[in-house]
Amino acid sequence: MSGTENTKTWQKKLHEVIYEADTPAGKLFDVVLIAIIIFSIILVMLESVNDIDSEYHYILLTAEWIITILFTIEYILRIISIKKPGKYIFSFYGIIDFLSTVPLYLSYIIAGSQALLALRALRLLRIFRVLKLVRFLGEASQLKKALKNSRTKITVFIYTVLVVSIILGTIMYLIEGEESGFTSIPRSIYWTIVTLTTVGYGDIAPQTSFGQFFATIIMILGYGIIAVPTGIVTVEFAKQGKQLHLNTQACPNCGTEGHQDSANFCHKCGHKL
Amino acid sequence: MSGTENTKTWQKKLHEVIYEADTPAGKLFDVVLIAIIIFSIILVMLESVNDIDSEYHYILLTAEWIITILFTIEYILRIISIKKPGKYIFSFYGIIDFLSTVPLYLSYIIAGSQALLALRALRLLRIFRVLKLVRFLGEASQLKKALKNSRTKITVFIYTVLVVSIILGTIMYLIEGEESGFTSIPRSIYWTIVTLTTVGYGDIAPQTSFGQFFATIIMILGYGIIAVPTGIVTVEFAKQGKQLHLNTQACPNCGTEGHQDSANFCHKCGHKL
Amino acid sequence: MSGTENTKTWQKKLHEVIYEADTPAGKLFDVVLIAIIIFSIILVMLESVNDIDSEYHYILLTAEWIITILFTIEYILRIISIKKPGKYIFSFYGIIDFLSTVPLYLSYIIAGSQALLALRALRLLRIFRVLKLVRFLGEASQLKKALKNSRTKITVFIYTVLVVSIILGTIMYLIEGEESGFTSIPRSIYWTIVTLTTVGYGDIAPQTSFGQFFATIIMILGYGIIAVPTGIVTVEFAKQGKQLHLNTQACPNCGTEGHQDSANFCHKCGHKL
Amino acid sequence: MSGTENTKTWQKKLHEVIYEADTPAGKLFDVVLIAIIIFSIILVMLESVNDIDSEYHYILLTAEWIITILFTIEYILRIISIKKPGKYIFSFYGIIDFLSTVPLYLSYIIAGSQALLALRALRLLRIFRVLKLVRFLGEASQLKKALKNSRTKITVFIYTVLVVSIILGTIMYLIEGEESGFTSIPRSIYWTIVTLTTVGYGDIAPQTSFGQFFATIIMILGYGIIAVPTGIVTVEFAKQGKQLHLNTQACPNCGTEGHQDSANFCHKCGHKL
Repeated sequence: MSGTENTKTWQKKLHEVIYEADTPAGKLFDVVLIAIIIFSIILVMLESVNDIDSEYHYILLTAEWIITILFTIEYILRIISIKKPGKYIFSFYGIIDFLSTVPLYLSYIIAGSQALLALRALRLLRIFRVLKLVRFLGEASQLKKALKNSRTKITVFIYTVLVVSIILGTIMYLIEGEESGFTSIPRSIYWTIVTLTTVGYGDIAPQTSFGQFFATIIMILGYGIIAVPTGIVTVEFAKQGKQLHLNTQACPNCGTEGHQDSANFCHKCGHKL
Repeated sequence: MSGTENTKTWQKKLHEVIYEADTPAGKLFDVVLIAIIIFSIILVMLESVNDIDSEYHYILLTAEWIITILFTIEYILRIISIKKPGKYIFSFYGIIDFLSTVPLYLSYIIAGSQALLALRALRLLRIFRVLKLVRFLGEASQLKKALKNSRTKITVFIYTVLVVSIILGTIMYLIEGEESGFTSIPRSIYWTIVTLTTVGYGDIAPQTSFGQFFATIIMILGYGIIAVPTGIVTVEFAKQGKQLHLNTQACPNCGTEGHQDSANFCHKCGHKL
Repeated sequence: MSGTENTKTWQKKLHEVIYEADTPAGKLFDVVLIAIIIFSIILVMLESVNDIDSEYHYILLTAEWIITILFTIEYILRIISIKKPGKYIFSFYGIIDFLSTVPLYLSYIIAGSQALLALRALRLLRIFRVLKLVRFLGEASQLKKALKNSRTKITVFIYTVLVVSIILGTIMYLIEGEESGFTSIPRSIYWTIVTLTTVGYGDIAPQTSFGQFFATIIMILGYGIIAVPTGIVTVEFAKQGKQLHLNTQACPNCGTEGHQDSANFCHKCGHKL
Repeated sequence: MSGTENTKTWQKKLHEVIYEADTPAGKLFDVVLIAIIIFSIILVMLESVNDIDSEYHYILLTAEWIITILFTIEYILRIISIKKPGKYIFSFYGIIDFLSTVPLYLSYIIAGSQALLALRALRLLRIFRVLKLVRFLGEASQLKKALKNSRTKITVFIYTVLVVSIILGTIMYLIEGEESGFTSIPRSIYWTIVTLTTVGYGDIAPQTSFGQFFATIIMILGYGIIAVPTGIVTVEFAKQGKQLHLNTQACPNCGTEGHQDSANFCHKCGHKL
């Protein structure tokens, strides 16, 4: 019985350290973890640079193995220290943690599985929780909420933009033809989106006078319609802001609503709130 | 008589399937239609890629014929299943449907008529109606309304931008001259709009110091005036939002709608709400 | 006496035709004028295209002379048909009209005076007045007002952006050096503004790793601070909108303010407004 | 004693001239100073242009020495004319002034110290104070306040964008590979940010069909998320505007400020306003 209790206490303590950040040990664990994650991302980057990889290949590989082992230990600890391991394993962060750990093991089985290393960056999103910056979390959730509310409008907008891009791209393909680099309709649609979003690489550019005239219209269109998502999101943010700052409390005497959060008395009749 | 009735019933059922999406058959028809439209667009794209077209020319042509025949059948069914065919034929979607169907037939008569294939993409806009997503339709109509209200302001804005572009383009032509690629005033105006809208291809770029200085002014101008359409549209969206939020209540006395949330009395007739 | 009267009537009628657009004759005059202005601008553009100019030089020159003579006649008529010619001559449109007329005459005296032709485009701004679109004028003046109000904030913003550009440009010059195209500090500042305003020609681009890293910071900065002018202008527009739509009338009974323009009764106490 | 008094008066007068701009002498000093600063910045720019530097090297060097000496004198005068020199020396402008003065001296000791010359541009920010444009100062501080308030949200936003850029950049590296110029992950991330911020140099551009398709998604993402900082800042500006408009009245009983315009009673103590 005491063994089970010890296990529970031990498990509980581990849970505190790994999943929470209120205790000094928990905070230290999280800070060290973030540092290792950043280091692991830099490592992946360095490995991709030819000059560095050819010179320091074995050092980088060793470092990669150390990080993989550390991540493996962390992953196992996370599973054994939680009551319902399934909930963690299939949670967003659980999947990310798993995918950040396995690439090196997998690379001996499946070629190209190192692509999963990119997902390590997602682990960085944990920083908001780690730093226990409630203020940051609040802001982040406010951003999320506003974006969620404007989702439908933005979907309609992007869908319409895509349909317009297909049409404009096809027209540009017919105007410019293959000599100007508009070698196919998909490539022409790619150019249209490059132009419409005002990115403008210049790898493909209209050469004929009429093509340039038509491109001009696409540019002005793109310049104008950027107003649409901006307008949508701004209005959503404004709504969020109002909901947080003004409360919905009604005066018990006269029933007036819309008091400031700091109000003690009704601003209409002077009754205590 | 029963023959006429049968025809009517048959016509009615067909109308239900083709024009509505409430019944399972109607929904199925619409989903299949959207799938065929998407397939037809991909087909047009693939035909434009030289490598693919040269290898699979006959397969693509056959597929194109199948789609054209399907669209033709659909077009005829749409006409015979509606009471007033003229209304459909000259409606926005009626014209689009027609233009999406004829290119292949026309290609044997008029060269280059395949350009009309681009219009097939417009058929995709039907998806909002097909999916019967009232929410989407509502959002789409809200977007449309806001854009419609800001139309006049945006026209004034674009007109002024064009006038300014002509002037700045001509000045740049005089500053840079032909050596830097500013070979004519129209081309120079094209460059100005590329710069003003912050697209910036880089196919033409100022080479002289003074030209670069002047280009800098155009860039900052363009960077600043993007605020104007954005401001216009945002304010329109905000108005839309307010109109939806605040008032749907009708006065019991005079029926006036559009009261403020805080209103106790009708602002038209003074009757208690 | 009758001669003076006749002159007056003649002058008055001419004034009506030239300066106003209420009578059919006045409207016709203005529409024809706009058409000639557009034609004159297209002419200037065509002259700048080498291929066209070399082939049709004499036709273009003749057309230019015809337009110059028409503009001269119009300019003289404008002066003699107005009571205070000085007021017109030194007004914005008076100066533009003069500068649109003289280039061809001047070209025989001063080389390069054709640069003034660019100013002809400014005459196009008359269209708002010509079309007597009160709605357009109202919108245009609203735009002007909002931009005027945000002038100070925008000046502060642009000044700060310029100071930051000088600093960032100098740092980039020191990082990248001449091999990457950053041949001098002014050129480097030019690149910084190209990047900060998200234009991005690509005629100069960082080559070193550190330069690219630093460029990344400038880009994100530019991507972020575009929010500032947009925010300023949007808020100004919102203010304009409110001032037009909500009135400041106070209820004579309870003194509540903020009634809708269409309100006949106070929405708080029901008293007649 | 009278000597000390004289010194004090002398010091006081100097302080008035150098630190304030109310007296004619003070204003003159500041205007001359700004002129010299602008001249010194132009000088640094000219020195960096090879053609100019090689021809006028000694003239430029002499001018640089004159400016350095003038700045040195100004710096010393600033220190001796203030009561607490330490406060000035370690203030923002004190450090800028010092760093603007020393580069030429340092250049004889440490190579490359001329990099500090870039900081001279920061001295230009003094113009707001110098011109004593209270209006400008107010606007500037309003801008600062709004940006300060949106700092947390913008930090969350930029952090998330960076994490997304790392992931998208890595994916692009895997898709395009080294043949298309995506030679390493850091370079690929650089390209992602160039695209996401809609800068689009075009020095690196996707070549494969799938790469272009994926790039298209990044562009639309970047085009859409520019709405986020814009929305944040706009809402902040709107709040600033409202706070200025609505409430400056202080409660006669408790002195609380920031009442709503429609308030009849203080919302803190319930006293009639």
